[in-house]
This record gives sequence, structure tokens and C-alpha cells, in this order.
Amino acid sequence: MDIKKMVMTIAKDAKIVSQNLRTLSTDIKNNALLNMANSLEKKTNVIIDANKKDIKNAKKKRLSSAMIDRLTLNPSRVRTMSDGLREVVSLPDPVGEITRMWKRPNNLQIGKIRVPIGVIGIIYESRPNVTVDTAGLALKAGNAIILRGGSEAIHSNITITKILREASKMSNLPVNSIQLIDVTDRTAVYEMLKLDAYIDLVIPRGGFELINMVVENSRIPVIKHDKGLCHIYIDNEADLKMAEEIAFNAKVQRPGVCNAMETLLVNKEISETFLPSMAKRFKEAGVEIRGCPITKKILPFVKKASKKDWETEYLDLILSIKVVKDIKEAIDHIATYSSGLAEAIVTTNYNKARTFLNEVDSSSVFVNASTRFTDGNQFGLGAEMGISTQKLHVRGPMGLEDLTTTKYIILGNGQIRR
Amino acid sequence: MDIKKMVMTIAKDAKIVSQNLRTLSTDIKNNALLNMANSLEKKTNVIIDANKKDIKNAKKKRLSSAMIDRLTLNPSRVRTMSDGLREVVSLPDPVGEITRMWKRPNNLQIGKIRVPIGVIGIIYESRPNVTVDTAGLALKAGNAIILRGGSEAIHSNITITKILREASKMSNLPVNSIQLIDVTDRTAVYEMLKLDAYIDLVIPRGGFELINMVVENSRIPVIKHDKGLCHIYIDNEADLKMAEEIAFNAKVQRPGVCNAMETLLVNKEISETFLPSMAKRFKEAGVEIRGCPITKKILPFVKKASKKDWETEYLDLILSIKVVKDIKEAIDHIATYSSGLAEAIVTTNYNKARTFLNEVDSSSVFVNASTRFTDGNQFGLGAEMGISTQKLHVRGPMGLEDLTTTKYIILGNGQIRR
Repeated sequence: MDIKKMVMTIAKDAKIVSQNLRTLSTDIKNNALLNMANSLEKKTNVIIDANKKDIKNAKKKRLSSAMIDRLTLNPSRVRTMSDGLREVVSLPDPVGEITRMWKRPNNLQIGKIRVPIGVIGIIYESRPNVTVDTAGLALKAGNAIILRGGSEAIHSNITITKILREASKMSNLPVNSIQLIDVTDRTAVYEMLKLDAYIDLVIPRGGFELINMVVENSRIPVIKHDKGLCHIYIDNEADLKMAEEIAFNAKVQRPGVCNAMETLLVNKEISETFLPSMAKRFKEAGVEIRGCPITKKILPFVKKASKKDWETEYLDLILSIKVVKDIKEAIDHIATYSSGLAEAIVTTNYNKARTFLNEVDSSSVFVNASTRFTDGNQFGLGAEMGISTQKLHVRGPMGLEDLTTTKYIILGNGQIRR
Repeated sequence: MDIKKMVMTIAKDAKIVSQNLRTLSTDIKNNALLNMANSLEKKTNVIIDANKKDIKNAKKKRLSSAMIDRLTLNPSRVRTMSDGLREVVSLPDPVGEITRMWKRPNNLQIGKIRVPIGVIGIIYESRPNVTVDTAGLALKAGNAIILRGGSEAIHSNITITKILREASKMSNLPVNSIQLIDVTDRTAVYEMLKLDAYIDLVIPRGGFELINMVVENSRIPVIKHDKGLCHIYIDNEADLKMAEEIAFNAKVQRPGVCNAMETLLVNKEISETFLPSMAKRFKEAGVEIRGCPITKKILPFVKKASKKDWETEYLDLILSIKVVKDIKEAIDHIATYSSGLAEAIVTTNYNKARTFLNEVDSSSVFVNASTRFTDGNQFGLGAEMGISTQKLHVRGPMGLEDLTTTKYIILGNGQIRR
């Protein structure tokens, strides 16, 4: 099979159906999503059978048990996927929203209206639920989607996509609204990334290597979901009990995700009061601490942190701690080492809260709350496509609205330009 | 001189000052812009002297008189540049605007706030006024700017940038807020496009070849300003006098710009009434018409239009005309051939106006007005950075607001994730 030709055909077909999807009523889209949800549940066994093949291969390839867990589907996980689609149904349709409208001196009325982006390509790894989540969101926002999942989930993805496409057909939705590139050869990705004439946006979700490859090779605009190296700064005027709860939650509740805390910054003035009990809790939870020289003086049992620690997203029960002189040193440390995803300050001082909010340049800046809330669902945006770590188009957790663009509409009564 | 090193130094310096610019008060920015405007005027003679060198070189290179005209500065044009800066002062500062804020069930308050993008690179050709316009806009929105003008305007650009930087210094603004890459070697552009660690956005303004080179080679997100192939559809239920005025304005008022009309679509039912008088006016204005077979029947003197005509942005007093059966055929023609910049319908029928607005996927869709209004100033956005012809981040005329991104701010009182 000619991969280049196949990818080109998929992209062209997506472009064609996107013209139709653009103007579909919310009712038709919602009905299709509900049919998809029901079909997935009805065919749970078929999905699980396909998934078993992927798991068998994964075991053969000796993938880590964590990876195999992420790959595994069971009836409850299939149920979660279809419930996700039902949740998308319940979200308002962003398409057609007029976000602003104004009148010019010559009586032209000018408005900005949300419209679908067009064709969205998703390049992702392992979890088969991404197939359903992203297809549902893209569709609700009126976009055609081209899915390119990882080779380890290929059987699951083929089966799931087939079910979604059959449900589309049943719902008077163009069957090519959802397409899967079902060859695992990487050439397919390179070919896809050239097709800016047909694909409007590419979202890579996965490790650094994947994202870098996409950024490097894409002619299509990219929204990337990069790493998260999150900081929490405990101010000397913090409620120390609250500070301890927030820091503990941000590190321990789910250490393997991008919005977990990796570095704790502690104001010198309260470091001797705060750190011993905080460290005790971390120790009980199995967290390994690496500290700056002052931290080591207060907590002699901790390892020494090196520059490399400040730069590392552990994604694990490891934490680096730095004692800082003041909020300025904290903000400077963040500016130097943060990945720009999420940072928090714990303080009772109004001015310092305001300074932190203004000066920290991250996608999500918290006062007195855990960075773990950096998530589309937690923000109330519904299901999410990913978290953008770039500045263009969208920053931070992406919701339905972020899968649209705008156009201007201009209503006149014969105006011409002088 | 090592170009690679020079570009890297410029980019790093821009990144450093962008941290400072991000939190500058509106007053400081406005004061700097006013000082720049005044300095430009005071040094009009110095600018014109430098400009003379560029014009001399341009004549030596036998550039077209149109290009030499675009390149030429005189006291009135310098005045226009400084007035442009004063206009930017009068625009509201987009930085710090909270566009939305909501409360979650757990009492977290989540808001989206506008922040500067950071470092913006502009790669442009000929007109030296772009140097002043884009620097002023970028600065007002809190961004550092790296300018890369064309070799033909290098002396003008060096002198103008020097004046702007001196005025910055005088105004307590970091002098590296505005930097010019003052070597004309193209290597500098290739080096610049690699520096996504320091530069957040690149805007190419110029011909197809320049834009394509940037899209092809950039690791940095790009907002492109592509060509404009604009259509006007005259419906059978149009006010034909209004239709004639709008079509004439869109073709003739300034044919060399991207928002001028290139193809006129005319409903068959009124084609025999409408076309003869319309064509007469075009003929009087020196417009060459190329028509479809039906047009040729009605206007025997016109040339035959080929497929190539439907695909061509003439930027000249040339117009292609196609007679269509109905609005559907008009919309289909637009979907096939439009560059997606701007299209208009002239009609008195409500349903057709609504259909056109909904179904035409262009950055600006007009009812009963000339496409020539597709412009930041005309839309009331103030001066403009260009017109985006892509879908990500911004579409259509770009204003100050489009030179910002957003971040989330989250206000809590101890919330942790369960």
C-alpha cells in the first residue's frame, strides 16, 4: 500500500466533509454523539477482544506494567468513554456564538462569530480512550478529525473507530468525519504533517520526542502539550496548615501527571517552622526530598539538590525544595526553571498574591489552591483535548471552545470605501 | 561577524526584556510611544537622508517605480508614522483585561486574563513604515519585538530603529524592547526561525515566496498574511444600484491590495439587466474583464475566462466574471477558489444573507458592503499588524488584542484535589 497516497486521500476526504460539518445543527451532532456512546457500550465485548490483542503484544514487547495498565480496557473503562461522549452532548455548542459585535461610525455592524477550525489531526500515544474523547470533542465543535494513535493500541483504535464511524452513518453524519490512520509506520505521520492544504491543526499528545518531531516537521500549525514542571511558593505570611495541605496534595495525590508539583519554594522566615512537619508528611508518603543547602540544614536527612533537580519533571514521588529569601527570588526561580504550565503561591498577603498573579508567566497561576486543578474538567471546561503549553491560540487546559476559530461578519446597507 | 551568534544574542536579549515589559504600566508604555513619535518627527531629516540611500540603491537595482514609491519617505509620510504611534497610545491597553471569570462548585474562582505574547519577530519587505507601526503595536501590547526588514529599506530601517531605541532609553523602557536584525543576509532569517526557545511568534509580511519560506522553516509558531482572492456575489434579489456601487468600489478603488475583488459572481436571473451597465462602468475605469461563456454572450467584447482566472489574484484592473445559477453555485465557487480572506453578498433576501454568512468560510464575510473594508482600521481595531489568513489564534485583520495571549488565574482558599 502506498502510505503517501493513503494519507493524502484521508486528508482530502476530511477536508470535504468538514465543509458539511461546519454548518450542521447542534441537534444532529448531539444525536450522533449519543448514538456513538450507545454503540460503544453495546459493543463492549468487541472492543475488549480487540484490546486483548494489544495487551498480548504489549506483554510480548515487555512494556512496563504502568503502560499496560494505561492501555487496558474493561467494561467500566468503556463505560467511562461513552459517558464522556454524553458529557460532551451536555456542553453548549460553541459554534455560532457571537463573541462581540460593534457598530462603526459608517453604520457597518461588525461581529466576531465562532466557527469550526475545519480539519484537526491528533497524534497520540497508548490510551485508547483518547480516540473517543478527542473525536467527540472535535465533532461537537464541528470539525473533522484524523486520528493517529500509537502502534501499541492499534487493534483497540481500529475497532473503536469502526464503531464510531458506523454510528456516524446511522446518524446522518458523514462517515469520514472521523478517520483513523491505521498503519503504524511513522512515514504516515511525516506525510500527514505536510498536508497544510487540507489539515488546519495538529495536536501531538505524548512524550517529548513525539512532540519535538511534530514541531520540527509540521507545515501545519501545532498546539503542543508539553511537560509540566510546576512550583508552589510558600510565603512567610501563609496559613501554614493550608500550605502543608496544598503542597502535600500537589505532590502526592497523583505524582505521575503534568500538573503535580515538582519544586517547593519556601520563604526563609518560616522555613524552620514549616519544613520539619511538612517533610515528615512527605516522608510518610514515601516522597524522596532533594534540598538546597538551607533545606539540608533544616532537614539533614535529605539529599542535596543540584541544578539538574530544578530542571527535572520527576513525575514521581520525588520533590526538590528550595528556601528563598522572598517572593522575588521565588518568581525569579520560576521564571528560570518553570515549564510554564502551572504555579501556585500560598499567602494571606494581598499584595503578594497580586504580584504573583501578575508576574508569573504560566498558563495557570494559583493563589491558595493546588496546581492539581490545572485540568479542563476541573476548570469546568468539560472534557479536554489536552493542555496547551504554547502561547498561540490557546494556553492551558483546552476545552470545546478552543477547537473553534472565529470569523468576522459584517452587515451593511451599501457601504463602500472612500 | 558571526550571524548565528548575533541573531541568538538578539533573541536572548529580547526574551530578557520581555519579562520586564510584561508588567509595565500602561502609562510608561504610552509615554515611551509618545516620545518615539516626537523623536521621529524631530529627526525627519535624518530619516529622509537615510531613505535617500535606499532609493538610490533601488534605482540602481532598477526596482519598479511602484516599489520605489512604497519605499520612499517624505516629511508627510514620517508624520503619518508618528501619528500612527499616537493613535496606538489612544487605544486601550489589552494587557490585564479579564475576558471571563467564573466560579466552580468548590468555590475556586477561575479567570482568563490577557497577557503579552512575549517576543514577536516580524519579517517584512520594503515599506519602512512597517518598522514603526509594528514596533508600536507590539510594545503597547507588552511585547519585545525583533524586526527583520527587507534589504531594500535597510538604511531607513537602521535609522528609524535607532531613533526608536533612543526614545525608549529616554522613557525608562528597556532599549532592547525594539531590535533590528541589520544584516541583509538571509541566513539571519533561517537562524531566527530556529529560536523557538526565545521567540514566541513570527509574523511574515510579504510575498508568497517569503511566507512559504517562513512556514517551511519555522520552529516558531507563525501567523501568516497570505494573498486575498475575494469574491462578490450579486443575488437576483439585490438592489442593483447598490450592487453596482459595491462591486465598482471593491474592484476599482484600490485594485492593488488584498481586499480588492478579483471575481464577480452574478445570478443568472439578473445577469442581462445588471452586467451591461456594470461592464460599462468598469470599462470606463479601464478594467479588463474576463468572463464565463454566459458573460461573454451578454458582453461579447470581453475575453474568455479560463480556470486560471478563477485562481488568480490579479491585484490589478482585471476582473473575472461568472454567471451562476443560484447562491449555492456561488458559495461552491467561493469554497473552491477563494483564498479565504473576504467575500460579500449583495441581496435584499434575509434567508440568503443568513445562508451566505453561515456557509462562507472566510475571515470576513460581508452583506451589502464592499470587501475593501477588510482592514484593522476600518474594523475599528486601530492600526494593524497584518491580516491573518490562517485559522489558529487569529483570523482576519489583527489588532492590539491579537498581540496578546491569555493565562488562567485561579483564586482559592485552600482547595485541594480529591
